[in-house]
Amino acid sequence: INLLSPGDATLVCTTGVFGDRFVSIHQSFGLAPQVLPFEWGRAIDPDVLRKTLKSGPGLKAVFLQHTDTSTGVLNDVKTLAAIVRAESDALVVVDSVSGLACEPLETDAWGLDVVVTGSQKGLMNAPGLGFAAVSERAWKACDAAKLPRFNFDWRRMRKSIADRETPWTPAISIVAGQAAALQLLRAEGLEKVWARHDDLAAHARKLLKEKLGLPFYAKDPANILTGVVLPQGVDGVKLLADILREEGISIAGGQLELKGKIFRLAHMGYISKPDIDAGVDALARRLVGAKI
Amino acid sequence: INLLSPGDATLVCTTGVFGDRFVSIHQSFGLAPQVLPFEWGRAIDPDVLRKTLKSGPGLKAVFLQHTDTSTGVLNDVKTLAAIVRAESDALVVVDSVSGLACEPLETDAWGLDVVVTGSQKGLMNAPGLGFAAVSERAWKACDAAKLPRFNFDWRRMRKSIADRETPWTPAISIVAGQAAALQLLRAEGLEKVWARHDDLAAHARKLLKEKLGLPFYAKDPANILTGVVLPQGVDGVKLLADILREEGISIAGGQLELKGKIFRLAHMGYISKPDIDAGVDALARRLVGAKI
Repeated sequence: INLLSPGDATLVCTTGVFGDRFVSIHQSFGLAPQVLPFEWGRAIDPDVLRKTLKSGPGLKAVFLQHTDTSTGVLNDVKTLAAIVRAESDALVVVDSVSGLACEPLETDAWGLDVVVTGSQKGLMNAPGLGFAAVSERAWKACDAAKLPRFNFDWRRMRKSIADRETPWTPAISIVAGQAAALQLLRAEGLEKVWARHDDLAAHARKLLKEKLGLPFYAKDPANILTGVVLPQGVDGVKLLADILREEGISIAGGQLELKGKIFRLAHMGYISKPDIDAGVDALARRLVGAKI
Repeated sequence: INLLSPGDATLVCTTGVFGDRFVSIHQSFGLAPQVLPFEWGRAIDPDVLRKTLKSGPGLKAVFLQHTDTSTGVLNDVKTLAAIVRAESDALVVVDSVSGLACEPLETDAWGLDVVVTGSQKGLMNAPGLGFAAVSERAWKACDAAKLPRFNFDWRRMRKSIADRETPWTPAISIVAGQAAALQLLRAEGLEKVWARHDDLAAHARKLLKEKLGLPFYAKDPANILTGVVLPQGVDGVKLLADILREEGISIAGGQLELKGKIFRLAHMGYISKPDIDAGVDALARRLVGAKI
């Protein structure tokens, strides 16, 4: 809504719940985006995107997910953004709420105009803050955009930041937590943070394969979480609620059409191998009767 | 924006920065509200409101402040809401961000359709949460309203709450803090909470009068804070920055046209007499050279 005006043509690539959310936001503001859906668990196909851009009208913006938390899929944002840049003048808008700091992402080097993220995933903080990285091209679009906005108006934030203030009272406790978490991330170094997530994901998948032997959901998985398909007849909602209530371990279930059918074991941000071990053990005890 | 459609007629009574903010929100969404301004520091005059309603067109909603944090003024919401109800079919929308739990307020008994507040004032929590109380009449307006909205769409919240969920990831740490703060408030009892604020305000004003002898800003003050007019020649911005840096005591300055000209000593929510004493002492040392 900071970039667009009524009637603007946009393209949304969807690979799960959070791609669909981009579509809902468009619709709530009276826009009718072109939607390019991909099979859940599969990454966006660069060739399909290229063909669509070649045949399409002048687009104002293309919306991509870096990772979709609903399926654990990873999209090749670097390649996709290069295609958008080559084939159109559209702004490249990337949802990296769960991807940032878990998987490599470069804003300027990859030509990304807007990247949004949150405090509670790779940034290792409590939930409550959202962030947007905005390119010069995107600022121009923002200044010209006509969709109505107030609280989330980037222009108010830009104006306040110049005075070292915020336009409204921020969630100060979470801002302080974020400052501490960013110091940890900076001390570790971003390349090592990415490598840590590689390692966590490999560890989780090895354990899950050994102890559960169930199929993974995503064909093109990201280092943020592993979605696992539950056996038919297992009530996933009850399973995870039992584990949470009886053992205090929170494991995410499936969303919307995947509800009850998969679980999503997170391995991002402030999650360590012992956390993963405890989660897999709890699942193994209940699903295959392993004595752990 | 949850109540209104393009072209709706509304009335906004303004007594400070936060009344003006209602006007800005209207304007951002393309609405042109009728504005009824009152002198800063003065409460809304019930007779002026009555006359305006009698002469005006069919209004969809009337916007009031319970207390305006920028000036510390208190409005007689009970009387004002009764006038709106008697003279029109308009919804009564009340900003009680700083007033709730500091001053008596009753939603149903006073005929208030919407009351909004935040977590960080009378509710004694860290900032980061907003709350809205919504009447049946207001829900009907919400379901019919056409202004575009997504994140703040009450309908999404209503739908999720029915499933004991939230539409998006909430600021969980602050929700937990709010639950604890509400237990404290409930244990104390709302009447005693109001009495505590009466007492805090009287204590602060007595001290300020004795130790500083400066004029108070608001003619119709609320129990949330006391605005005090600084002597000419005193740079209020520097004064308060010095106190914060050197003593770790945060005292609010004036906003917009009052910047540097007043200070606002808060005495609401999780603030105690020793906090007030320390603030007044710091001011007294710097303003009148008292040896404390």
